[in-house]
Amino acid sequence: MFQSLSVGVRDVVFGDKVAIISPCNLYECTIGDECFIGPFVEIQKGVIIGSRCKIQSHSFICELVSIGNDCFVGHGVMFVNDLFANGGPSGNPADWKPTFIGNRVSIGSNATILPVSICDDVVIGAGAVVTKKITEPGNYAGNPAKKLAKK
Amino acid sequence: MFQSLSVGVRDVVFGDKVAIISPCNLYECTIGDECFIGPFVEIQKGVIIGSRCKIQSHSFICELVSIGNDCFVGHGVMFVNDLFANGGPSGNPADWKPTFIGNRVSIGSNATILPVSICDDVVIGAGAVVTKKITEPGNYAGNPAKKLAKK
Amino acid sequence: MFQSLSVGVRDVVFGDKVAIISPCNLYECTIGDECFIGPFVEIQKGVIIGSRCKIQSHSFICELVSIGNDCFVGHGVMFVNDLFANGGPSGNPADWKPTFIGNRVSIGSNATILPVSICDDVVIGAGAVVTKKITEPGNYAGNPAKKLAKK
Repeated sequence: MFQSLSVGVRDVVFGDKVAIISPCNLYECTIGDECFIGPFVEIQKGVIIGSRCKIQSHSFICELVSIGNDCFVGHGVMFVNDLFANGGPSGNPADWKPTFIGNRVSIGSNATILPVSICDDVVIGAGAVVTKKITEPGNYAGNPAKKLAKK
Repeated sequence: MFQSLSVGVRDVVFGDKVAIISPCNLYECTIGDECFIGPFVEIQKGVIIGSRCKIQSHSFICELVSIGNDCFVGHGVMFVNDLFANGGPSGNPADWKPTFIGNRVSIGSNATILPVSICDDVVIGAGAVVTKKITEPGNYAGNPAKKLAKK
Repeated sequence: MFQSLSVGVRDVVFGDKVAIISPCNLYECTIGDECFIGPFVEIQKGVIIGSRCKIQSHSFICELVSIGNDCFVGHGVMFVNDLFANGGPSGNPADWKPTFIGNRVSIGSNATILPVSICDDVVIGAGAVVTKKITEPGNYAGNPAKKLAKK
């Protein structure tokens, strides 16, 4: 026996002129003006997204993530809030960690973002795994992500 | 001209109290008691999943994978059974390799699991690529995944 | 307020005997004979895919990508056309870069393909991040992807 629910849009606070491609699963979150949300996206409760952000297809934004203005989240980007500190997932949200993304942050496709803060004006390369906080603007890539030298 | 089929739930053996978020594509597999299956998931034929597992959104579990009890498969996790040993995909299932996941294994989001065995009580970090069998409990991360030192 | 559109198949040029698993989002692209397109896939406008290719679930193929014949794109593979050269996404397609995939190229699951050319008869490992053009047949893996020694 199984119980089946369907994805959809439930209890979301939208700004003006938001565009969504369904199917996506958005619930109990806040999405600012002029954002675009691609298909096959899930955004969980409590997430706050600023204005003029694009959240591309196949991405997942978990509880405790906040994202500033003018950010780009590429395709297949996964955010993480549970570090499995006790050897596995915690059912207690008090064990989860928050993520703060600044303004004008662009995250490449297939990147993975552990619970960190990322300052304004950062580019995360495609496929990167961000494991530590980022406090300086610039370009970061790799697993684990490191700052790239300026070209 | 094209032929279109739709995802759905077909010929699945469910335990008690399984919860599913659709759309997902589950067929000819076995899913144990009290499992949760998130949206945008595909689980192929012959897969066996134990009790009390969570398979999170955007994950793909291919043929020849078996998963124990109390496991957590994060978001965007991809399992692999074909190593392209002859320079490309094999249409012959006899060329594919199995994956065995033990009990209490937690796999971080965007991880990739090649056909290996993973013992009980293992944590795989987000974004890791597991290319070799894991026989000791502990935490593994990176591409290719390696065991992390104890903190 | 939000505007919602749904995924689907729109203005696609199909060859003979193409099979699609919906939901997927295919628009203004060309897909050759006997291709298979899995569920939760997005293929954008202008993409050209040759004959007898398999595009597996959860993959995203962006504008300016062309793929030859007899290719395999695994699950969760993301193509990229915008390198954020000016510190963020460009709204001007003239800033985007093309990707050319040859014939008999097999791309492992969760791989990320930056805008490059890849010659015929290449295998890209699961989870790889391809950042540079590939001009020699062989196997490539890692982040960034490097050629593997022959076994």
